[in-house]
Amino acid sequence: MYRNPVDDYHFLFTEVLGQDVVAEATGGEVSADDIRDVLTSAGEFAVEVLHPLNAIGDREGSKLVDGAVQTPSGYQKAYRGYVEGGWTTITIPEAIGGDGVPWTVHNALSELWSAANAAFSLCTGLSVGAVLAIHASADQQVRDTYLPPMVAGEWTGTMNLTEPQAGTDLSSIRTIARPNGDGTWSVEGQKIFITWGDHDLTENIVHLVLARTPDAPAGLGGLSLFVVPKFLPDAAGKPGARNAITTVSLEHKLGIHSSPTCVLQYEGATGHLIGELHGGLAAMFVMMNASRTGIGLQGLGVADRAYQQARDYADERVQGRVIGRPEGTPISGHPDVARLLLSMSSRVSAIRALSVQLSYWLDVAERKGDAEAATLAEFMVPIFKGWATEESVRIASDGVQVHGGLGFIEETGAAQHLRDARIFPIYEGTTAIQSNDLVGRKVLRNKGETAQQLAALIERDLAPLRDSDHPVAVRTVERMDRALRTAQTATGQLMSHAVRDDLRSAFAVSVPYLELLGILSGGWMHARMLTAALGHAELDDADRRRIDEADFFGAHHLAVVHSLAESIEYGEIG
Amino acid sequence: MYRNPVDDYHFLFTEVLGQDVVAEATGGEVSADDIRDVLTSAGEFAVEVLHPLNAIGDREGSKLVDGAVQTPSGYQKAYRGYVEGGWTTITIPEAIGGDGVPWTVHNALSELWSAANAAFSLCTGLSVGAVLAIHASADQQVRDTYLPPMVAGEWTGTMNLTEPQAGTDLSSIRTIARPNGDGTWSVEGQKIFITWGDHDLTENIVHLVLARTPDAPAGLGGLSLFVVPKFLPDAAGKPGARNAITTVSLEHKLGIHSSPTCVLQYEGATGHLIGELHGGLAAMFVMMNASRTGIGLQGLGVADRAYQQARDYADERVQGRVIGRPEGTPISGHPDVARLLLSMSSRVSAIRALSVQLSYWLDVAERKGDAEAATLAEFMVPIFKGWATEESVRIASDGVQVHGGLGFIEETGAAQHLRDARIFPIYEGTTAIQSNDLVGRKVLRNKGETAQQLAALIERDLAPLRDSDHPVAVRTVERMDRALRTAQTATGQLMSHAVRDDLRSAFAVSVPYLELLGILSGGWMHARMLTAALGHAELDDADRRRIDEADFFGAHHLAVVHSLAESIEYGEIG
Repeated sequence: MYRNPVDDYHFLFTEVLGQDVVAEATGGEVSADDIRDVLTSAGEFAVEVLHPLNAIGDREGSKLVDGAVQTPSGYQKAYRGYVEGGWTTITIPEAIGGDGVPWTVHNALSELWSAANAAFSLCTGLSVGAVLAIHASADQQVRDTYLPPMVAGEWTGTMNLTEPQAGTDLSSIRTIARPNGDGTWSVEGQKIFITWGDHDLTENIVHLVLARTPDAPAGLGGLSLFVVPKFLPDAAGKPGARNAITTVSLEHKLGIHSSPTCVLQYEGATGHLIGELHGGLAAMFVMMNASRTGIGLQGLGVADRAYQQARDYADERVQGRVIGRPEGTPISGHPDVARLLLSMSSRVSAIRALSVQLSYWLDVAERKGDAEAATLAEFMVPIFKGWATEESVRIASDGVQVHGGLGFIEETGAAQHLRDARIFPIYEGTTAIQSNDLVGRKVLRNKGETAQQLAALIERDLAPLRDSDHPVAVRTVERMDRALRTAQTATGQLMSHAVRDDLRSAFAVSVPYLELLGILSGGWMHARMLTAALGHAELDDADRRRIDEADFFGAHHLAVVHSLAESIEYGEIG
Repeated sequence: MYRNPVDDYHFLFTEVLGQDVVAEATGGEVSADDIRDVLTSAGEFAVEVLHPLNAIGDREGSKLVDGAVQTPSGYQKAYRGYVEGGWTTITIPEAIGGDGVPWTVHNALSELWSAANAAFSLCTGLSVGAVLAIHASADQQVRDTYLPPMVAGEWTGTMNLTEPQAGTDLSSIRTIARPNGDGTWSVEGQKIFITWGDHDLTENIVHLVLARTPDAPAGLGGLSLFVVPKFLPDAAGKPGARNAITTVSLEHKLGIHSSPTCVLQYEGATGHLIGELHGGLAAMFVMMNASRTGIGLQGLGVADRAYQQARDYADERVQGRVIGRPEGTPISGHPDVARLLLSMSSRVSAIRALSVQLSYWLDVAERKGDAEAATLAEFMVPIFKGWATEESVRIASDGVQVHGGLGFIEETGAAQHLRDARIFPIYEGTTAIQSNDLVGRKVLRNKGETAQQLAALIERDLAPLRDSDHPVAVRTVERMDRALRTAQTATGQLMSHAVRDDLRSAFAVSVPYLELLGILSGGWMHARMLTAALGHAELDDADRRRIDEADFFGAHHLAVVHSLAESIEYGEIG
């Protein structure tokens, strides 16, 4: 049974990152206490409705039948429940008819949906992204036509970027949009890997399609963004004539089976330009930070669920005599199983705290125009996406290991988490794409200034721990001091590769550098959670868990920054 | 297309580990040159017959139809070809009618079969294990009845240990064998996870079943081993009456789909005791070293195939402008893809060399009675099994990453390697079981003496590199010296946990300790391969690759020993 981490969120919102980061973001309109209720109720929907469909969706998968996608049993009902519960609108800005909760809350909800059913959550998550892009770039008529039904969850939205020859490199997109002369455009081409590109959950689907226009300049600067609906809205705004879009096939994937991954053929489909002509990339990238953060949260959700399932199994299963423990102690008492479980939970807690930190920066930047927070958020997005998703694969794999032979049997469910998680470090930009963004745009371009800012924040947050004589506090300070020095050396090495005009070396170690900063940030989060936990007059079970997690993270995960720094020093090899 | 690493084996056999380790083991009867031909011909069978069935076997799986297992299309023909090619008999000792090749050759062949089709190779590999166990423990009549058809590949053999309540802990086995009064026994109980427990490749299947006899003492000391055939041999030694064994169901697994994992119900099946009454564990464990090493080789085989597939794809696929390289350079030129590929191949090469080192020790111990080699082999078996299999999962996962989005599509084949590999760190003893064996029986029991012996060997093999002024030699010596010091500190820490009566702490860090020694041994192998490569008057492409791999392994993988040592220092947390 999946348990909602609402108490951890409350702790993070009210004790770790501030007195009430939700109230701070909303100018007091909404408090962390209000949000505890919201998360509790979301958790109920997640546990009762979405969670049981996760294995069913994996087994049945979405299917293409007579050109239309059929979702697994129960998905239509679950989607209706999701809409009726108000979960579609809660995260959409008030200006477009939503409840406009801050990112701290938005992202906490994303974790819940992903943990319960990552494949389902892709549909609703991408749809919110499409709403934001249309809102930001489309003209009033398009906004008036498309946004109300999308916000209401009656229609969903998708992103159409990839083509067979244009994956990571969008500059080679060939799909073409020709003007019809009446203000509309005629779109022709094939798009692949279109997540939830067709389905039976809603009466219409709105595609955002990146395409080239006739006589457009070559490369990325020649791309424009179009809104192309499955059914053309009629005069009343209802789905009318079928647009010329065919679902050619679905991919047979390792995981997230219930998420239909479509090959879509546009055969002169009618669409509207949104944003500037040749400004497609900018219009699409409006939601890049949100979507990359969203995939990091998928990693977090699936990792926590994999952890919870492994812990539940290990707390039940009795096998072998547990050293130093009474007869009948379950396998969670075996030293190595305990190590694996604490390793998993210490990373899950670090990633969750980091997601709240990132969300907090996004809120302060957006709502208060705080430029420093904006810079830090931009810096952290690729780190969070890259590190959280790489860890999600490792954590899900650890979850299989805890189950032993049973973990390899599909009915157990542990293997599904590994299969599902494996896409997270790939889509919305592979880890290398994240690390190149980090190194190229966010470290080298400003000579490591933001990295220095981050180090200063960490330094500041270590100060209260220095006063504690708790042994874990003492160890944590010592470990973090060392990790900080190592990180600064690594940043220096990275920049020195670039200065020596050896850009290939800088990019050859960009992933190790991203991992290093991810782990360092995780250590920072544990230091802050530890400070909060040790501040309690009496330690409860949650506090004791947090102390153990901080200690474990320091001894096992933070220690890895030093070996990563050694790899970074050497740059490119071969 | 899978390429046979025969040249790497020749290099290892003749330049890295000795002048001709095959001739040394066989007293000159067989040379490394002879074996180059054998491996070449095995590679042809692997590539042409077994390799194409790997994806088919994954897709179709083995199925239970009317109580009998049906293997995928083409498996029967492939098995006949395997038998006719003499691959069943080549690895079986001459005393039992085989060709009796040494372990160096046996294990090289195992790599080939596993790379081509890991699920298929389980059938033939387990059968050899059963032959060895029967040969070692059964009486003459049982040997005469069962061994000839098994050696000829007309019958296969299986191992029956696990029961629902008895996985890692065999002491809770409940299957019972009662004497029939005529020298035979009647076996009753349920066995699960029986690999190739039923199939249609041969006319008979011989199960080795661990069971309890009436009035046997509780625990492991009450187990006896029985040979229980699917069909009872008639007077002519041909399969006669059907024995009372039912295939209840097959498991639905994450990977190795064509290997039928059976639930077998013994309902008064007739069997023969082999080995001593209550000596079942000893009789079964005759082949433990071989079977654990065999699973390590499965890891190696699948890892190399995942690497080769990723490299082939990356050398073909053109996507995005490659920094510092001409237009049209494929993605293998991107710094991060190059990093991933070199990371994979540097580990594959280290693991392969280590498998030859281990095989060499097994040969010298068995054939020359060398006690030191026997001790070193005993020490290395759990390290090799644990490290090679954990790496195989990580390498297969890297292979998916190199493919980007395509890696997540099943038809690409990269995901199958990850799914297949995921069982390797679990079966034949999880990594924790290996590390507990290592720490408990092989480090603490002799106060780290064997670990010291290993360090002395590594030290000895670094000497020739110290004379080289090649920059990679200089770096490798510096890195290995540091790694050796760290490893010695870690062994000391581990022993000091135990001395302080904190056995839980020793076992809580046994997996990190196993990984540390695995990586250190990999670095040792690279140092030796580097020495051999640098010894060539002119460096060819293979030499340059080996130099790069040694350098990469040192900068990226060997560096990890220091962080592992930090984890080991702290012992148990929580």
